[in-house]
Amino acid sequence: MTQITSFPIFPHRHLLGIKGLSAQDLTTLIDRADANVAVSRQIDKKKTSMRGRTQINLFFENSTRTQSSFELAGKRLGADVMNMAVSHSSVKKGETLIDTAMTLNAMHPDILVVRHKSGGAAALLAQKVSCCVVNAGDGAHEHPTQALLDALTIRRAKGRIEGLTVAICGDILHSRVARSNILSLNALGARVRAVAPTTLLPYDIGHMSVEVFTTMQEGLKNADVVMMLRLQRERMSGAFIPSVREYFRFFGLDKQKLALANKDCIVMHPGPINRGVEIASDIADGQQSVIHTQVEMGVAVRMAVIEALLDPRRSEGDIQ
Amino acid sequence: MTQITSFPIFPHRHLLGIKGLSAQDLTTLIDRADANVAVSRQIDKKKTSMRGRTQINLFFENSTRTQSSFELAGKRLGADVMNMAVSHSSVKKGETLIDTAMTLNAMHPDILVVRHKSGGAAALLAQKVSCCVVNAGDGAHEHPTQALLDALTIRRAKGRIEGLTVAICGDILHSRVARSNILSLNALGARVRAVAPTTLLPYDIGHMSVEVFTTMQEGLKNADVVMMLRLQRERMSGAFIPSVREYFRFFGLDKQKLALANKDCIVMHPGPINRGVEIASDIADGQQSVIHTQVEMGVAVRMAVIEALLDPRRSEGDIQ
Amino acid sequence: MTQITSFPIFPHRHLLGIKGLSAQDLTTLIDRADANVAVSRQIDKKKTSMRGRTQINLFFENSTRTQSSFELAGKRLGADVMNMAVSHSSVKKGETLIDTAMTLNAMHPDILVVRHKSGGAAALLAQKVSCCVVNAGDGAHEHPTQALLDALTIRRAKGRIEGLTVAICGDILHSRVARSNILSLNALGARVRAVAPTTLLPYDIGHMSVEVFTTMQEGLKNADVVMMLRLQRERMSGAFIPSVREYFRFFGLDKQKLALANKDCIVMHPGPINRGVEIASDIADGQQSVIHTQVEMGVAVRMAVIEALLDPRRSEGDIQ
Repeated sequence: MTQITSFPIFPHRHLLGIKGLSAQDLTTLIDRADANVAVSRQIDKKKTSMRGRTQINLFFENSTRTQSSFELAGKRLGADVMNMAVSHSSVKKGETLIDTAMTLNAMHPDILVVRHKSGGAAALLAQKVSCCVVNAGDGAHEHPTQALLDALTIRRAKGRIEGLTVAICGDILHSRVARSNILSLNALGARVRAVAPTTLLPYDIGHMSVEVFTTMQEGLKNADVVMMLRLQRERMSGAFIPSVREYFRFFGLDKQKLALANKDCIVMHPGPINRGVEIASDIADGQQSVIHTQVEMGVAVRMAVIEALLDPRRSEGDIQ
Repeated sequence: MTQITSFPIFPHRHLLGIKGLSAQDLTTLIDRADANVAVSRQIDKKKTSMRGRTQINLFFENSTRTQSSFELAGKRLGADVMNMAVSHSSVKKGETLIDTAMTLNAMHPDILVVRHKSGGAAALLAQKVSCCVVNAGDGAHEHPTQALLDALTIRRAKGRIEGLTVAICGDILHSRVARSNILSLNALGARVRAVAPTTLLPYDIGHMSVEVFTTMQEGLKNADVVMMLRLQRERMSGAFIPSVREYFRFFGLDKQKLALANKDCIVMHPGPINRGVEIASDIADGQQSVIHTQVEMGVAVRMAVIEALLDPRRSEGDIQ
Repeated sequence: MTQITSFPIFPHRHLLGIKGLSAQDLTTLIDRADANVAVSRQIDKKKTSMRGRTQINLFFENSTRTQSSFELAGKRLGADVMNMAVSHSSVKKGETLIDTAMTLNAMHPDILVVRHKSGGAAALLAQKVSCCVVNAGDGAHEHPTQALLDALTIRRAKGRIEGLTVAICGDILHSRVARSNILSLNALGARVRAVAPTTLLPYDIGHMSVEVFTTMQEGLKNADVVMMLRLQRERMSGAFIPSVREYFRFFGLDKQKLALANKDCIVMHPGPINRGVEIASDIADGQQSVIHTQVEMGVAVRMAVIEALLDPRRSEGDIQ
């Protein structure tokens, strides 16, 4: 069970975003994660590398999916994992974000996993606390572990990332998933497309290294990967919320639109999916879909991130 | 601590209900559970048979009592246990039951414990996921671990189940506890009675192997076991909700009614009890009550079920 | 890592309050806790003294802070920890406090940590259950682990407790923290002051061993320790709720008022702090503040309490 593999050093203390990471950094994390995939498939799913260490999941936004993935990752590394779901009501009781984090910091966690509705929250905490911080999603800013698990999923499905054409489709404006993926896929050498109605494109899309398309028909042509995004209706204000029916007609992924992509194109979605809104059910459940693989890779990636931050020199094997 | 006992093989992959289990299956589980009772009474309450394995408790209905029992059972077997309480509000966000389960399945749990307000939910999931599924209560359908813990409680109190007269009393119509118990107690050779007002009897009661009584006075006569049910007012619609006072007068268990049963009759209730509604306080706390024993047996039964599903050949002793 | 230190025997089964503990009892717990501080500062933060044992945190009042501290304490001792947050809504479903506790008791926990809004709740449970009970705050009555962590914080900052002048300031009427601290600091030989507006003093303050001051200007003079309390607005009824602005002007701790205390005076607060209500931000974050140290000591104290209750003869070293 203990394969000692040598990974290049990961020189960062926190994982706040994809921005600032080199292709080498990304590859290090993805390689480590790839080696972890087998762990969760074994009967005995536990490593001992984090035995005796404490991980706190501090979630200001509800997310059973991402929190579960981090929780299982920490537990399978042998860490003690504590979940802290902080509802907005109790935030209103008066304690500030930083006071909450500093209180937890005084309990000596080794790693703090943070999700917050405001962009920059994770970076702010990283300046204050003495432990490692992982950004599990901050507003519309970044969601780096999602981009890493997406990259690993693509690499395992297609054998490589470099040179692939990846179409990121849908509500790019409100999507931290899109932002992190654009950064990582570019760094890893993919050709990245943003496919969205103009109302759902960020104003600074011109400064991102993407080719912009405003119809699925054009944007999906010859794509190797179609990455659908969740329609973040809860982050939109009144007048600009598209009707679900109209949205699906023009930007939902169905058989007809997918037929325009390459024949062996894979379909991704960060979940939870809105069936019939961003994606047709038969596509979500179809042969080209790698949606469940993304979830599986999520645990492996988070294990790798935790290990890389807590001990950059550590191999993927157990430490005795 | 390690007694190696040989149990007959338990040939099922999931525990979805009592229906379909043979008397031999039931006895295997009850024997295993009986051997586990001592574990929780020790200072060191842990076995290691599930070390490195992952248990997810997926509860769509709130139940601190049942969830706690499964959580402790899993932890005392050495498993990593993750609780997922899915509120109805977040269900409405659009993710389907099956999508939620398939997402968790992709994280490679070994066992999924499911509670849901709809009958058949656990069976539906079992067809989809690749791990073992335990039904922790699905609508008014079944609650198999409750029936097992009740059987173990009866067997330990009375030395046997075969030939005993068991009166199940109260809101049988809405009770998955009643349904599972009728099946298991019949399989194990008891004489089962259903004692309820006609408005709280299921329409198909005639097809169940029970003797029906519509008064406690008749139904309790010569009973060896009186099993009271919780009045599920939350599952009743307007006009048919009985007044609590009237209900207690006719169907609540008090000293006078209990006196009609056998002198050494035991009193059971799945909890949480409504004092003064289904049962008088002095009876709930009295010498004939085995209500706390039922809770204790619950942990032992759930440990046994988890072990039996994950490794049917395993004895109750620790595996090295 | 394993230092075997001999502690005097701690002869109590439960920790329900500071009342009834001798100076020797308190010193035993504080010494044990002091020895535990180093544990949480290590890379491997785990002891094994509670391996195989079960701790249940039964919180009828929300408190992420105190619950987290107990959760980490239990996990770092190797115990299986289960959190039970019981909301008032589910209490209303009809199960009594004692029924809830007796149900959990039947699952054989070794230790039950209880928080409840009613004074006396922990003592009531201790009479019923067969496991150890720790009071984690009961109404306006007591919060003994808070007093212990405060004593340890003071002793580490000032080298001693005896002979120090400690000013407890603010909403003493509604504060279990004040009540427990008055008892423990007196037992340990400090001179204790109560500094509050007359409307926020308990009616029986004359029977407590404190010197009473109704202005901060007088109460802080020559103090070695200023212990601020949280303004418990949620426990006040209509007419008597002071305005926040007025309260801060007269009883909030700011630079001017703190200047009246001794130059090396330390500033404490049980948290969560209301910045600008009880305490100015620059004081909370200033050099004299030991607020984060209090949180750190909290984990060490709770580890010590759990160990002392479960095995009074145990040293702080791991047991093999």
